[in-house]
Amino acid sequence: MQILDGKQTSETIKQEILAEVEQLMANGGKRPHLAAIIVGHDGASETYVANKVKACRDCGFDSTLLQFEDSISEAELLNEVKKCNRNEEIDGIIVQLPLPHHINEHKIIEAIDYKKDVDGFHPENVGRLYIGMPCYISATPKGILELLTRYHISTKGKKCVVLGRSNIVGKPTAALMMQKDMGDATVTILHSHSQNLKEECLQADILVTAIGQPHFVTADMIKDGVVILDIGITRVADSTRSKGYRLLGDVDFDNVAPKCSYITPVPGGVGPMTVSMLMLNTLAAAKHTYYPKE
Amino acid sequence: MQILDGKQTSETIKQEILAEVEQLMANGGKRPHLAAIIVGHDGASETYVANKVKACRDCGFDSTLLQFEDSISEAELLNEVKKCNRNEEIDGIIVQLPLPHHINEHKIIEAIDYKKDVDGFHPENVGRLYIGMPCYISATPKGILELLTRYHISTKGKKCVVLGRSNIVGKPTAALMMQKDMGDATVTILHSHSQNLKEECLQADILVTAIGQPHFVTADMIKDGVVILDIGITRVADSTRSKGYRLLGDVDFDNVAPKCSYITPVPGGVGPMTVSMLMLNTLAAAKHTYYPKE
Repeated sequence: MQILDGKQTSETIKQEILAEVEQLMANGGKRPHLAAIIVGHDGASETYVANKVKACRDCGFDSTLLQFEDSISEAELLNEVKKCNRNEEIDGIIVQLPLPHHINEHKIIEAIDYKKDVDGFHPENVGRLYIGMPCYISATPKGILELLTRYHISTKGKKCVVLGRSNIVGKPTAALMMQKDMGDATVTILHSHSQNLKEECLQADILVTAIGQPHFVTADMIKDGVVILDIGITRVADSTRSKGYRLLGDVDFDNVAPKCSYITPVPGGVGPMTVSMLMLNTLAAAKHTYYPKE
Repeated sequence: MQILDGKQTSETIKQEILAEVEQLMANGGKRPHLAAIIVGHDGASETYVANKVKACRDCGFDSTLLQFEDSISEAELLNEVKKCNRNEEIDGIIVQLPLPHHINEHKIIEAIDYKKDVDGFHPENVGRLYIGMPCYISATPKGILELLTRYHISTKGKKCVVLGRSNIVGKPTAALMMQKDMGDATVTILHSHSQNLKEECLQADILVTAIGQPHFVTADMIKDGVVILDIGITRVADSTRSKGYRLLGDVDFDNVAPKCSYITPVPGGVGPMTVSMLMLNTLAAAKHTYYPKE
């Protein structure tokens, strides 16, 4: 069994990006610039955004952090997004989710110019991924495939089972893994209404879990030699930790890991990869890789 | 074994649409209007478009058929699409595929205003389907689900295997069947690189085949009681027919049908359904069902 070290891989990728940015600058290019919008003071959201801003620094990017109070109206937030769309200095825009209930998330995401939508959440990017066109691929599926690629784990023709059908993890992971020029795997997507869930999991060569239920995947649900990518992150109270909690994935790690050929830890697996994938998308935005400059 | 009669079902749906249009008109509403664009003189394409124009008549719609020679340039065709976008009389626009090689299909489809894209091929509609937002669902997957619904065949939690990952059939069918508020099935999508293809098919409660290889699916590849939707349509030379050919699906019908609970014939299965689904989308366009009038 080998650990898929997302933390170390992500550091390597950020160093590669920094080197490319320095080369870009030496050639008179534009420094990539990410704008991050956050509403309110949710602790986890603030931590995630702070990590993204720090990653920008690590990669030699400029960044703009726009923080608004919970009281901001939907119309005001839409206006802020549009200002970022028009700002030619800004290459990529992200809006940290979730948003307060009085704001329609779909509406905000659709307001982002899809050519700056480095989270890949805009329907235009979702659709382009699904039909195999150039686009921003959202960070979690992109991070999964990048991690597999860097560990030389082939996915072509393999059975990839995705547990969970969320719009930000399960569905885009299924979309990426089924594409001919990307995952090229046989994909099955499971969810709360799936019958025979255990039997389906037992067939997986590659199992991606994204349901947010600690210890859901147990040793009797997997076959020997499976590759597991555990996307679940649940905070569980733990008075022995200084933060008062610890993070658990969807997998009963201690019992499952010995049966795997490869497995991601939680934390330190796919989580850190998502930040470096956001950086790769922002670099691509600055370089107009997917959408040519008009 | 029961035949899923797409031809009869499609006739019923067209009659329902006609009744609704008459009601709309009686209330002072707008008559739905479809614009169909075709380039060149491919026999099959001309037949498909003629069927769509005829269906418009059957449903009480207006239609505009724009036919161009193979020599039309990409720029000229883009301009024709944009004229339809601007024309407020026109509710829905379709461009018959395939297009000549000198024209980029993706570019033409992306030029259609997605709010008039009643084929559901624009990335915006593909993406919205995938994340569960209101949108035009392309005709084949929509026809499959409609046919299943009208025969009271439940898909929730069932195992749906999709054979083929084309952008116009396989992928959107998988997308529709996995959505919580639509198919709600466990979906597996198979393709030319899939290992264990036969074993995967054997697990299907519902099997959708869309690969275009006559007699590919044989009786040893399915379990008893499966529901089969055969989307394959291949012309095979047959001198005993007046047209000189007959149409074959992907399924070895004579040997497979006795094992099924339900199966679509070819022709007369999903094929006719696609035309009535296009009509439903055009009606929805005229009523601004998915995209409110601005």
